[in-house]
Amino acid sequence: MDGFDKVTGAAKFAVDLVIPGAVHGKILRSPYPHARIVSIHTTEADRVPGVLAVLTGKDLSDIQPYFGRSEFLNAPPDHPIIAIDRVLYAGEPVAAVAARDGAAAEEALSKIEVEYEPLPAASTVAEATAPGAPQLHSFASNNICFHDHVERGDVENGFAEADLILEDTFEFPMVYHYSMEPHTTIAQFDSDGITVWSSSAHPFIMRQQIAEIFRCPVFRVRVIIPFVGGAYGSKSGAKIDPLVVALARKARRPVRVTQSVSEAMMTVRRHAATCKIKTGVKKDGRLVAKRAELFLNTGAYAENGPIVTSKAMIRVLGPYRIPHIKIDAYCVYTHTVPAASFRSIGAPQSAWAAESQMDMMAEKLGIDPMELRFKNLLKRGEEIRPKGTPLDADLFEGLHKVKEALRWDGPISRDGKGRGVSFGVTDAGSPLASIATVHLDADGNAVLLCGTSEIGQGARTIMSQIVAEELCLPLERVTMRPTDTMYTPYDRSTGSSRSTTVMGRAVQEAAQDAREQLLRIASRSFEIPPQQIRLDDGNVLVGDRKISYGELIGRHFATGGGEVIGRGSLEKMRSEPARNPLFWEIGIGAVEIDVDEETGRIGIAKYVTAADVGKAINPMQCEGQDEGSAMMGVGHTLYESIIYDNGQIVNPNLIDYRVPAFEDTPKEFECILVENGDGPGPYGAKGMGEAGIIPPAAAIANALAWKTGARIKELPLTPERVWRALRDKRKP
Amino acid sequence: MDGFDKVTGAAKFAVDLVIPGAVHGKILRSPYPHARIVSIHTTEADRVPGVLAVLTGKDLSDIQPYFGRSEFLNAPPDHPIIAIDRVLYAGEPVAAVAARDGAAAEEALSKIEVEYEPLPAASTVAEATAPGAPQLHSFASNNICFHDHVERGDVENGFAEADLILEDTFEFPMVYHYSMEPHTTIAQFDSDGITVWSSSAHPFIMRQQIAEIFRCPVFRVRVIIPFVGGAYGSKSGAKIDPLVVALARKARRPVRVTQSVSEAMMTVRRHAATCKIKTGVKKDGRLVAKRAELFLNTGAYAENGPIVTSKAMIRVLGPYRIPHIKIDAYCVYTHTVPAASFRSIGAPQSAWAAESQMDMMAEKLGIDPMELRFKNLLKRGEEIRPKGTPLDADLFEGLHKVKEALRWDGPISRDGKGRGVSFGVTDAGSPLASIATVHLDADGNAVLLCGTSEIGQGARTIMSQIVAEELCLPLERVTMRPTDTMYTPYDRSTGSSRSTTVMGRAVQEAAQDAREQLLRIASRSFEIPPQQIRLDDGNVLVGDRKISYGELIGRHFATGGGEVIGRGSLEKMRSEPARNPLFWEIGIGAVEIDVDEETGRIGIAKYVTAADVGKAINPMQCEGQDEGSAMMGVGHTLYESIIYDNGQIVNPNLIDYRVPAFEDTPKEFECILVENGDGPGPYGAKGMGEAGIIPPAAAIANALAWKTGARIKELPLTPERVWRALRDKRKP
Repeated sequence: MDGFDKVTGAAKFAVDLVIPGAVHGKILRSPYPHARIVSIHTTEADRVPGVLAVLTGKDLSDIQPYFGRSEFLNAPPDHPIIAIDRVLYAGEPVAAVAARDGAAAEEALSKIEVEYEPLPAASTVAEATAPGAPQLHSFASNNICFHDHVERGDVENGFAEADLILEDTFEFPMVYHYSMEPHTTIAQFDSDGITVWSSSAHPFIMRQQIAEIFRCPVFRVRVIIPFVGGAYGSKSGAKIDPLVVALARKARRPVRVTQSVSEAMMTVRRHAATCKIKTGVKKDGRLVAKRAELFLNTGAYAENGPIVTSKAMIRVLGPYRIPHIKIDAYCVYTHTVPAASFRSIGAPQSAWAAESQMDMMAEKLGIDPMELRFKNLLKRGEEIRPKGTPLDADLFEGLHKVKEALRWDGPISRDGKGRGVSFGVTDAGSPLASIATVHLDADGNAVLLCGTSEIGQGARTIMSQIVAEELCLPLERVTMRPTDTMYTPYDRSTGSSRSTTVMGRAVQEAAQDAREQLLRIASRSFEIPPQQIRLDDGNVLVGDRKISYGELIGRHFATGGGEVIGRGSLEKMRSEPARNPLFWEIGIGAVEIDVDEETGRIGIAKYVTAADVGKAINPMQCEGQDEGSAMMGVGHTLYESIIYDNGQIVNPNLIDYRVPAFEDTPKEFECILVENGDGPGPYGAKGMGEAGIIPPAAAIANALAWKTGARIKELPLTPERVWRALRDKRKP
Repeated sequence: MDGFDKVTGAAKFAVDLVIPGAVHGKILRSPYPHARIVSIHTTEADRVPGVLAVLTGKDLSDIQPYFGRSEFLNAPPDHPIIAIDRVLYAGEPVAAVAARDGAAAEEALSKIEVEYEPLPAASTVAEATAPGAPQLHSFASNNICFHDHVERGDVENGFAEADLILEDTFEFPMVYHYSMEPHTTIAQFDSDGITVWSSSAHPFIMRQQIAEIFRCPVFRVRVIIPFVGGAYGSKSGAKIDPLVVALARKARRPVRVTQSVSEAMMTVRRHAATCKIKTGVKKDGRLVAKRAELFLNTGAYAENGPIVTSKAMIRVLGPYRIPHIKIDAYCVYTHTVPAASFRSIGAPQSAWAAESQMDMMAEKLGIDPMELRFKNLLKRGEEIRPKGTPLDADLFEGLHKVKEALRWDGPISRDGKGRGVSFGVTDAGSPLASIATVHLDADGNAVLLCGTSEIGQGARTIMSQIVAEELCLPLERVTMRPTDTMYTPYDRSTGSSRSTTVMGRAVQEAAQDAREQLLRIASRSFEIPPQQIRLDDGNVLVGDRKISYGELIGRHFATGGGEVIGRGSLEKMRSEPARNPLFWEIGIGAVEIDVDEETGRIGIAKYVTAADVGKAINPMQCEGQDEGSAMMGVGHTLYESIIYDNGQIVNPNLIDYRVPAFEDTPKEFECILVENGDGPGPYGAKGMGEAGIIPPAAAIANALAWKTGARIKELPLTPERVWRALRDKRKP
């Protein structure tokens, strides 16, 4: 619905907004990964003409200066909105300037004198958990921010039954989200309260966080969300927003901070992970036991690292029947950029390890890797994780379709390409906290208020389709308003593949509520029971009598105006049996690759991605999301890694940090949507768009191993790394 | 609730808004009261540096260029948004300029060359209805825009029974609203649709009008209402708004037009009226018959003149038992500024005539004027007008209170002051088309969305009080959002004393709906029936257990966030017996005056105003409104009159057009609120604020006549006019 506006540039993103009187904000960042701040002198900076405010940690004494996602952490929020007394990663904001123009702000930044006392730092999990490592937060001994554990059966007995046991360690890199739009926030602090224009996927969570920081009720905080240029988790919860509000408060002006890509990379990233995984299997290929220890590098502040860690723990299980499991997952503080949500939290890391090992076992057992998976796949209704919702999908159907698409007859194709396959399984879940209202006006058009952020995923189209369907209206007569928390009903968040499923249900309920009211009004008007009334294309039909919705509503209110408001707050969904997860999100990836053994370069000849979506409300959007998700997975598989050296990111830009370009897309790219109407969303839909990113890493590494014999356990599979592996293999 | 913001200047009115990229709009007005436009040359104006657009009637060919209130007029809209081919009053917009600064716009105005062919004009009803008068609109023969008629009994038989018949003609002047803020409109026309920031009391009617003019659905028109600096009817429906939108459309920029007082006076005014009234009465003072012909000067375009005319017709009856009536009312086009709504439409004109004549009869019959009124007052439940809602108030109680307040013992006080009394009765009415939503959030605070404009009447306070009352919340925990039609539910209009009564009920319903949902949630949570749950000061109480609303809601949605949305769209009110009018709005005014016989100056020693408000939800605001209303009546009684000479307003400014100042307030000013809980609004409230303006004219003229013997039948009672009357009376 908004494609035209996006393509022509009419769609307004935060950076396009002109806020009267807004001045420029710039951030001074720590050069040290760990240091005590001895002093900050801002006098010279304050004197730069045009400077309105210089903000430091000293300005936060009257507010609650720490934020975080305390619902995930058994400790107070740990993240200062700007450094107070110490810095815990290189790039951490230490001071910020608001000035009439960007040049003055930059000049002022250069005149802020910060005296640091550098301290030893730990960038990796290994360094942070080593004896004598510097401790980041007092409550987290050994820098363990959070630990989670799950167990089923008796894993030692399981291993005793096994015919083959593999034990490996896999490394997953730090990854940058690269949403096309880096974080942009404009904040205003005046007698009306706090107003924030932000490229956020979580307007209501951010509103709550800002209210807590600035100690005011939520209704005094207004968050306005324009179009958002991609999020992928990087815009979940508050990021730079509280800092910008504090700067606006001090400057007594609206302040705009537009981050560069480098700054966005210093704001949030995906968790790197070290996955130790030990799997036991019978000769015939039946899995019997799995033991794993996962260590997630969560950076300097917790953000939602704990929930990412818990999800990684579950997601390492995959869609297989494993009687005995014992998994520990650790969230570890390090002196690096805070890690937080990233599309399919925790899953690519875990699946990279588990699905690589599946093919290693297949090779040792002499079983086709596709076959090995079929042998262990769970059936609909079986348990994936202890106490969780039983499997709600037909995995066999999906895997068969992928197998057919690749005409699979073994891990090497007839024309000599390496083949790999991998599953991605996530346990999407979210509280039933989404509310929508549908306003049917006296023009007979429907206006939808729902707080889902349009982050490029096409939410406006999906939500409008649901309204159109329920109200028997053509799609062009439905419009969804942008989110403004001053008016828009509450929504928990845009993320966790929850919008279509959860908000979609709220929207459906709201539209149905409007429909029922419309029928009641028509019933009174025609003096006929509602059951004898039909709705069609914006008209109410009773026998051969016909009246448009608008006319009916206008008459009802006796003004030609008026509106019917339908309300949906998931009352019906809440009365259904509780599900946790809400649904299992399943993705399958399979690949055919070429390998240039001279350079180590991997080329993707064909990629098949399958998503079990329950019902594709908009098949084109589903395909677009699933293919985009798979390509994002190709990114961390072949190219992407934030590289730290001596506590510093050495590639914080899009030249040195390589993301996939159009020429990197597979020569053949196929998307399969599995639709069995078995999801809890509207019309049987499940959330989607997060599973596709999971399989590429193991699928491609598996294909590489089948093709060349080189098994690489560290991502990304750069030409250099592949070349070295091939060289090492050739060595005697 | 917003007093602090208003008094400190924090409250933002349209003129305070800064809209990015907005340029200045200025209007060129016709110097002729009636002319054909031969040609308009804009080439020189277009060349002025900084000019972005020059708008004339020629730019309207692709839109529907006429507007009006067609619901009141059996003819197509008659009012062009800018003159097309002809002008019908001096001051009519002929062209408009948008430019980067005001000076450039002014210069461009001066370079627009308009060639007119002046035509004969009629400023008064007498001129416009004379044979051979120039005709303004083809459908309106003899310039009669509208005629209404009401009859009861047989008026000729009634006069035959009468012992005394008086027949008089009273003149009521054109009056300017003088709201402190003249009309300001900012309009934007872009790919998002049409956005209008306006000091309007009718955002939704205006939205509809603009959608019709620019031929788009209403959801493409967004009307945002900041604080409004007074309206009194001058901001009902679209005024300059469509012109500003057309200018913005041509300039491709947001355009702001801020009118001066002079321009506002050329935009809208109150109807002048000639009231011919004949009343028959028995010796004992019983009224038996009334015949009236009312002629309202509606100016060049109809606006809502027809409904004003109908209301004047009914309101001439007063609160008296009159068996035989026959009233005709005529709405007459003239070549003057269009007249439209003005506080208590049609009533001051009618009551001025009828209530003056009451005292003339009292004098002739030798009956005390207070006594004469007591003799004729209707009792509760009696019919005021044919087929109307029976009287719903106790008039005796009100009049007794006024009598006591003045210690009335006759029309001359013991210290020799002249006394007068007068009634004001209006038949307020409005469709039941107001919708509100109340959002109870997880802070336990309530947010109200309702489309009532805060025009200085204190609507935000009243509506918030209703929410606080129903939800057992302290007032400071309720906030009402400003109107933005993009989000705010439909409301018919702010006017007709309808907001507290009609919107108040919608707000009450919405709050009750939220309350019921809260109780249901608590009932489920505590596993106890809702009847055993109490609400108190933001807490839910069950026995000695206590939980705050916010905590309960946060738990229900399992996020700490969420909200309960209550909805009110007057379903309950609609199920009650229909009332037309919705209620009778009753005001009583009584006065003691001094007269300086040397200068003719009238001084008000004491003024008592009584309003039958049913229930004063906020007594201080009721008193403020009623006193303000009475003072506005003192304005047209003693000072105010738009004076036309040769088709031109000769006093279009606040020097020559005199409004009451603080020193003109009565030395003693008393307000009596009659509260019997007999209104249809929340807690028995009736609308108020419109009746107080009605009595001053007749009350003061009556006091003057009792004191001096001079009976003046033309307003205002300026010193000159009084002096002349005293002189004439002294003549042999």
